Amino acid sequence: MLKLLYAAHTCSLASHIALEEAGAEYTTVRLDFRTNDQRKPEYLAINPKARVPALVTDYGVLTETPAILAFIAQSFPKARLALLDNPYEFARVQAFNSYLCSTVHVAHAHRMRGYRWADDPAAIKEMQRKAPAAVGECFDLIEREMFKGPWVMGEAYTVCDPYLFTLAQWLEADGVDPARFPKIRDHRVRMSERPAVKKALAEELRG
Amino acid sequence: MLKLLYAAHTCSLASHIALEEAGAEYTTVRLDFRTNDQRKPEYLAINPKARVPALVTDYGVLTETPAILAFIAQSFPKARLALLDNPYEFARVQAFNSYLCSTVHVAHAHRMRGYRWADDPAAIKEMQRKAPAAVGECFDLIEREMFKGPWVMGEAYTVCDPYLFTLAQWLEADGVDPARFPKIRDHRVRMSERPAVKKALAEELRG
Repeated sequence: MLKLLYAAHTCSLASHIALEEAGAEYTTVRLDFRTNDQRKPEYLAINPKARVPALVTDYGVLTETPAILAFIAQSFPKARLALLDNPYEFARVQAFNSYLCSTVHVAHAHRMRGYRWADDPAAIKEMQRKAPAAVGECFDLIEREMFKGPWVMGEAYTVCDPYLFTLAQWLEADGVDPARFPKIRDHRVRMSERPAVKKALAEELRG
Repeated sequence: MLKLLYAAHTCSLASHIALEEAGAEYTTVRLDFRTNDQRKPEYLAINPKARVPALVTDYGVLTETPAILAFIAQSFPKARLALLDNPYEFARVQAFNSYLCSTVHVAHAHRMRGYRWADDPAAIKEMQRKAPAAVGECFDLIEREMFKGPWVMGEAYTVCDPYLFTLAQWLEADGVDPARFPKIRDHRVRMSERPAVKKALAEELRG
């Protein structure tokens, strides 16, 4: 049985939605970042990175959203959450998710977690000031060059979709107007109508 | 035929080594970051992100190191560069590479490319000051929690190895003493003795 350790309003939502889309049997454990659950010894024993998500499997623990999403896609092939029998198409999915984790999520993190890369409060404030521009530039590139429609990869829904949806949820709080990106804005609406998304969000936002 | 677009002293070295390890037939195109080749229209037509690496395949262009490494591992299964028939083991490889791209490479980038996240020169300088601490913390975690030995994943050499080797090459320039990480330091020596690594480095550093 799979167990997802997640926190509300974080990127773990992508894995949560993917588990629902896959029809997986799984349980969840909710961490509260306000009480620093992710830094407590019992969580560090599971994931020493002190971050979410972590997916406990029968074989061991997996971390990192792109890896968890690839694992879910490969473990539940009937759900067709990635083109699995073509290395090029599978790598395209990995490339999109890799861009989200290494560039888009990182741009966003400079608004909330600048302390990772600077100690001086003035520098942290300067990162916050620039975050909307950096995040906006990433979504411009996705809108213009990467997003095929109606889903990220085109006609086929893949694990890229819950991940993009998750990061696009943060646009307003990042000070970026979603109206700049009509395709991504419509994708967000399309995603929010899927039962898997409704179910994952209902659990995470139940308060 | 595969074509790798790379620049010396960048993370594209990981893909270059992996192509050699795979025994792939491929050609290379060298970009020079000093003359901003990566921002020229002919390169942006291949990779609008203005970054390296890019791998031109018979099907289209792939970007993002973890995706290219997964593609090489899956396309050349005889080279056994990842455990391909077990979704959990494959995801462990992806998780390690995802950590390298989203956390380790990002920590390093704050020394050279702080302008991505701040405009104020004082903030950029503050990021440079903290970079050794941030990079050191990542390598501490790899040394303590992730690295199995003699290769990253244990007995089996995988695409994690050239990627770790590539980022570990930057430790001295990042102001971090490799002697703090005996396993990673020994891995660097072990890697540098492999014919594939020697060949890729010889081409990239030929001046």
